[in-house]
Amino acid sequence: MIEVEVKARSVPGIEEKILDLGGELIGVENHFDLYFSSPFRDFAKTDEALRIRIKEEGARLTYKGPKLDIETKSRLELTVRVDDPEALESILEAIGFSRAAVVKKRRTKYALGEAVLCVDEVEGLGYFVEVELVGDEEWEAQKRTALDILKRLGLGDSIRKSYLELLDDTRR
Amino acid sequence: MIEVEVKARSVPGIEEKILDLGGELIGVENHFDLYFSSPFRDFAKTDEALRIRIKEEGARLTYKGPKLDIETKSRLELTVRVDDPEALESILEAIGFSRAAVVKKRRTKYALGEAVLCVDEVEGLGYFVEVELVGDEEWEAQKRTALDILKRLGLGDSIRKSYLELLDDTRR
Repeated sequence: MIEVEVKARSVPGIEEKILDLGGELIGVENHFDLYFSSPFRDFAKTDEALRIRIKEEGARLTYKGPKLDIETKSRLELTVRVDDPEALESILEAIGFSRAAVVKKRRTKYALGEAVLCVDEVEGLGYFVEVELVGDEEWEAQKRTALDILKRLGLGDSIRKSYLELLDDTRR
Repeated sequence: MIEVEVKARSVPGIEEKILDLGGELIGVENHFDLYFSSPFRDFAKTDEALRIRIKEEGARLTYKGPKLDIETKSRLELTVRVDDPEALESILEAIGFSRAAVVKKRRTKYALGEAVLCVDEVEGLGYFVEVELVGDEEWEAQKRTALDILKRLGLGDSIRKSYLELLDDTRR
């Protein structure tokens, strides 16, 4: 499944704008994300990611493939739920992978039509809005819908860099 | 946690012998095991294993480290339960690992004191008995207990090779 995802820096009062457009609050999640580096491939260069995400409802291992276009963050995503993220990290380390970075954020989710909007407060980076669309609709159409939502919210240009990459930039 | 594990080829009537020694039937499991090879390390040479096991109660990812002595199959084992073994296989493939072998077996488990005895019918290999001990007891003592159980069952020498290695031998 290909997920269409666009992201932009947020502005003050964004929650009210989302509600004004007809958005409905889904809930709040706290994410603790561990990113791993590969022993034989530079995931930053290949535009891939391997992540353990720990949140209230449980933990997941996720692989993200290279992004598919230059406007959005759309890419292949593979995910599996795991019962013990610490054991999984030990397994990844045993087979040669190592913890490269940690990203912590507080995510407030809204439903808006077919889209899911996430207002993210990312430790060390600030506020962002992500628009996600997963559906049977044609991909180009979904992409236009997602970018149009950013525009209607009065947000600036779509950012393709991941929080991991943005955090990396702040350290350079 | 270090698991002490010894294994030997089985003999006819082994179930009765186990029951005679005081063993109690725990249950029967069907295992479908997928073994993976690493893109940058020969697990056969490093004596490691990375496995997805699918059985009735669910699926697990397991890493096994090199064996710790020359008499038993004792080694470090790390395990995590996963909800979707197919997605996990896709993730392993995406990060460079590939399916190297499949081992199918029917395992009948018995409890005998602190030990768990497994009578395994392995597709393509025949019948085996495994004795597993996991506990707080000193490791050498656990090893003696496990080897003594094989002896009391009238079984031959302990085999350190995995089913994966034994299957590999039959193909040479």
